[in-house]
Amino acid sequence: MDLKRIAKDTAKTLTSYLTYQAVRVVMGQLKETDVPRSYWFNEFATRDKLQDGEAFIAALMQEQADLALRVMTVRQHLAEEVTEFLPEMVTTGIQQANIEHRKRHLERMTQMSSEELKGKADAGDRDSQSE
Amino acid sequence: MDLKRIAKDTAKTLTSYLTYQAVRVVMGQLKETDVPRSYWFNEFATRDKLQDGEAFIAALMQEQADLALRVMTVRQHLAEEVTEFLPEMVTTGIQQANIEHRKRHLERMTQMSSEELKGKADAGDRDSQSE
Repeated sequence: MDLKRIAKDTAKTLTSYLTYQAVRVVMGQLKETDVPRSYWFNEFATRDKLQDGEAFIAALMQEQADLALRVMTVRQHLAEEVTEFLPEMVTTGIQQANIEHRKRHLERMTQMSSEELKGKADAGDRDSQSE
Repeated sequence: MDLKRIAKDTAKTLTSYLTYQAVRVVMGQLKETDVPRSYWFNEFATRDKLQDGEAFIAALMQEQADLALRVMTVRQHLAEEVTEFLPEMVTTGIQQANIEHRKRHLERMTQMSSEELKGKADAGDRDSQSE
């Protein structure tokens, strides 16, 4: 398990995700202040392009530099305000989700066993009746 | 800017991403210990299913519970080992990437201005020659 590589890949994914969230924030602002431009931005910011945050910003910089600068400012703000809470949120969230999955699995196993037991008991009844 | 909602959505995305990384770890282990099963797992774990980590684990639990339990253990381990480094990595990474984008933008602007100036200077030369 290459933890260093996983940490690096995860940071990259997280950076692209925060860039996507920053695009949504700027899009929301444009919708209230400059509707035609928000249409343009909406067409430009396809899901495909947003997969790589840096490539997206580089491309936007060539087309509408002020929008790129706004997205960059917002994503930096998001990184500063949001990321510090993530380790706790994600670790606790995964622990609780894991408990929930294990619980449901146990319930299903127990239900199956009791049905199996019931099946055997019924078969036993039939055996004793036939004796 | 709804920071609370953004933090929650980001934590969910991060959880699904760590689940995907845990699947890759378990897949790597299977490839070394049980090749036929690694094929099965590879077919089961499609990109589409992995979009939602919890739904993926619930589905896997129904098919091959021990694999689901392994993925759950690995993703908890990853959350504990990796997430604490993310705030620093992502915040610093975004700051540096932003500086880089701004620098390249300025260089391009400066280059354009100097070409414009050169263009004007050449035009001026021609003007003075024609006088």
